[in-house]
Amino acid sequence: MQTAIQCSAPATTGNAYAGTCPTRLVLDRIADKWAVLILGLLGDGPVRFNRLRRQIEGISQKMLSQTLKSLERDGLVSRKAIATVPVTVEYAITPLGATLSETVDALRIWAETHMGQVLVSQQQYDAGADRAA
Amino acid sequence: MQTAIQCSAPATTGNAYAGTCPTRLVLDRIADKWAVLILGLLGDGPVRFNRLRRQIEGISQKMLSQTLKSLERDGLVSRKAIATVPVTVEYAITPLGATLSETVDALRIWAETHMGQVLVSQQQYDAGADRAA
Repeated sequence: MQTAIQCSAPATTGNAYAGTCPTRLVLDRIADKWAVLILGLLGDGPVRFNRLRRQIEGISQKMLSQTLKSLERDGLVSRKAIATVPVTVEYAITPLGATLSETVDALRIWAETHMGQVLVSQQQYDAGADRAA
Repeated sequence: MQTAIQCSAPATTGNAYAGTCPTRLVLDRIADKWAVLILGLLGDGPVRFNRLRRQIEGISQKMLSQTLKSLERDGLVSRKAIATVPVTVEYAITPLGATLSETVDALRIWAETHMGQVLVSQQQYDAGADRAA
């Protein structure tokens, strides 16, 4: 008999391995390259929308807006409209978001520092697949 | 004048903010809930395919196969076929994957321990959106 994987939601601690646990949704949101890159920039202080867009090469305006909105809804980022003409919008990390900063930064830094090793592995794997074909 | 965001690929260190840097692809692969959940289980020792599938509730056979194949190609996971009838396949974390374990575990644990706060934020955000509507 298989015991169901437990999730104590809506209590404080969840279980990401339980299929219907809200933790899975939270993990899905934060395990996202755009969220990681945005939180990495906001770690140093508030940043305006247009600056975020310039700093994260290749992100579309729509994807940046959507990701910021999700992060705001999750309580990780706060949004402030500044009464300039035209209005400028500034985003900052919240205290809850700050508890996540170090972890997502570590993920980004791992990717940056191990990129070379991953590329070598991929080439070896692909060469092996060619030989096997 | 805007300076292009630098990426020193194919050298060892990349820049995840550069749109065409391979780091972005690596980050996209590891910032993935299924990869995080798989690496979390393999951290304790080799695990057979069917056991992984049972432990990660809700993952399809196809998604598990695809994610394991990507992780193997990236050099993070190794695959061993054991000559039983029928053949069983066992996956283990590689030394490169082990350097990532702690970081992805931290991401999963953050999701598990802060799930409650994220849910409260979402409810407050949605209530505010209702009032504004």
